[in-house]
Amino acid sequence: MVVGSVLVTGGTGYIGSFTALALLEADYKVVIADNLFNSSPEVINRIELISGKRPDFFQVDITDSTGFDKVFAAHPDIDSVIHFAALKAVGESGEKPLDYYHVNVYGSINLLRSMQKHNVYNIVFSSSATVYGDATRVPNMIPIPEECPLGPTNPYGNTKFAVETAITDFINAQRNNATKAGNADEAEKWNGALLRYFNPAGAHPSGIMGEDPQGVPYNLLPLLAQVATGKREKILVFGDDYASRDGTAIRDYIHILDLSNGHLRALNYLRANHPGVRAWNLGTGRGSTVYEMVKAFSTAVGRDLPYEVAPRRAGDVLDLTSNPTRAGKELGWKTERTLEQACEDLWLWTKNNPQGYRQQPPAELLAALKK
Amino acid sequence: MVVGSVLVTGGTGYIGSFTALALLEADYKVVIADNLFNSSPEVINRIELISGKRPDFFQVDITDSTGFDKVFAAHPDIDSVIHFAALKAVGESGEKPLDYYHVNVYGSINLLRSMQKHNVYNIVFSSSATVYGDATRVPNMIPIPEECPLGPTNPYGNTKFAVETAITDFINAQRNNATKAGNADEAEKWNGALLRYFNPAGAHPSGIMGEDPQGVPYNLLPLLAQVATGKREKILVFGDDYASRDGTAIRDYIHILDLSNGHLRALNYLRANHPGVRAWNLGTGRGSTVYEMVKAFSTAVGRDLPYEVAPRRAGDVLDLTSNPTRAGKELGWKTERTLEQACEDLWLWTKNNPQGYRQQPPAELLAALKK
Repeated sequence: MVVGSVLVTGGTGYIGSFTALALLEADYKVVIADNLFNSSPEVINRIELISGKRPDFFQVDITDSTGFDKVFAAHPDIDSVIHFAALKAVGESGEKPLDYYHVNVYGSINLLRSMQKHNVYNIVFSSSATVYGDATRVPNMIPIPEECPLGPTNPYGNTKFAVETAITDFINAQRNNATKAGNADEAEKWNGALLRYFNPAGAHPSGIMGEDPQGVPYNLLPLLAQVATGKREKILVFGDDYASRDGTAIRDYIHILDLSNGHLRALNYLRANHPGVRAWNLGTGRGSTVYEMVKAFSTAVGRDLPYEVAPRRAGDVLDLTSNPTRAGKELGWKTERTLEQACEDLWLWTKNNPQGYRQQPPAELLAALKK
Repeated sequence: MVVGSVLVTGGTGYIGSFTALALLEADYKVVIADNLFNSSPEVINRIELISGKRPDFFQVDITDSTGFDKVFAAHPDIDSVIHFAALKAVGESGEKPLDYYHVNVYGSINLLRSMQKHNVYNIVFSSSATVYGDATRVPNMIPIPEECPLGPTNPYGNTKFAVETAITDFINAQRNNATKAGNADEAEKWNGALLRYFNPAGAHPSGIMGEDPQGVPYNLLPLLAQVATGKREKILVFGDDYASRDGTAIRDYIHILDLSNGHLRALNYLRANHPGVRAWNLGTGRGSTVYEMVKAFSTAVGRDLPYEVAPRRAGDVLDLTSNPTRAGKELGWKTERTLEQACEDLWLWTKNNPQGYRQQPPAELLAALKK
């Protein structure tokens, strides 16, 4: 039985593909829209291999003003969107901010306009903990609760913040306009989730799905994975003079399966409880330093991975550890996998797929799936 | 002698047209781009009548991704933009927020992308005091200095805030990228002014240029003007239970000639001092309540204008009075005209142009101009 139909924008990307998988496993019908700018369509085959179900796929660029209209017209059953499509490199956003405003902000305005036109009621937005900025500027805000005042410190974060306000203003207006028109049933159909997450990590335990960044990765774990496979000589640790236990920055690494499950829970919550717009942190509540991550992944790999200390990056902050209490209470969600599992799953994926999705996984992994 | 060439977006609108006039009077060459959605091309004739110079005009919609490219290609001498084009009704922004995000935010991203492509270095942005939101939430922030934390309370203000961050991120990136490339001279050419203003009021003392809103006006003074001419029976005072001296909301009304002069000063400052991105309040520093404004305009008209109290509007705040100290110190700018003059000039404009720009002004006003 299909419980609902969902469009996943950016659905061939890392978090998008795992969320598409989680939706299919929960009996949602899934349509993926992606421009394949930083991802491979091969991931759709892997989703099918694992779930036994194949999402529909549209190659759509989010900045194409009519792109989503075509998708919604072809799939009038879609009533919800989980929106990942975006540029996501903090450093690059400082060099090419207009690309980020164009793709992330204008692209999202496009999507919302199309949702309005086609009465697509629910949106789960892939926001980011980056919207909080440096939470240490406010007393008692580490670990960070959703109530922490927002204050992004880089263009990437500014674009996520702008989309959060656009979604909030849009959903509130749809509700108010319907209420004023005397249509309370229609009003409560419009809902939005702002999911602020922390650092996604790990891969599918089968070893056939994982993160496959095109070009140079910009997150710690994929970089460590490249060091482990010899693609990269060493990693750079950006700043060892932060006020943390070992001088390196603290982040909250969450297993990708826990994170994608959080998206599923948020969508279910919107559909069942009609909260209007609501923000939830998706994190473990436990912070790890860069050095601790290097050690944890080295343990999974079985040898010490080399690193070098480099200056802090502009826009980086000391500590982004979540307080996930609200998601626990309201969504009944909590993380179930450890950092060690994330490292082991990432290493299984990496060593078996050195070319990412550009080559087929080893036969023994595929055979294990069929059991 | 022409001192520089400036594109004025929204240049046939109220503040835009007066700023175009101020630029021409200061020997700038002026190109106006406007979609004429809420304005009349007749204002260009009035600008010419007053200044003896005619701005060039392009009918451009800011959401046309190639519109500004055509303007900049036709006028390669343009090195600065004063950017007014936007939707501006707070109330409407709550009902149709996506129109506001599309026109104001996407339109501005479009403009910035085009400026980057054509090396147009300076932007003076028509922001709004609305970006401060309710300044009474922070201690000691009335009158409001530029350091007041931003926190808009309605979609219109959210779009102005998003454009402020886009401009800031863009100018900073252009500067950093040029600096990294070893080109310090190029770096300092990129500059931006964020002008946050308060409530523009009044008209040209000649009586032939003023505000001519199409449809229902949404600001107090144009509404009062319609009551004075009998187009409207009475005005609505939104809220008489604010914590002010007479219960009505406090705003800072600034004469349109002072405001347009502030734009000129800001542009001159960017070109002479290369500050990067800088925000300035343009206001008088003196707040007036709604009741005080009704009284002041009634005095100018010579009779009491009727009003009726209505509930507060969503998103409205108690007090938006500026602290204009920074603009005074840095731009050498201060307001020179009184509220009484604004009311008298508005009444002169209104009684002589009951159809706004849709009819020619009285011959005696035109004759007086020629003296």
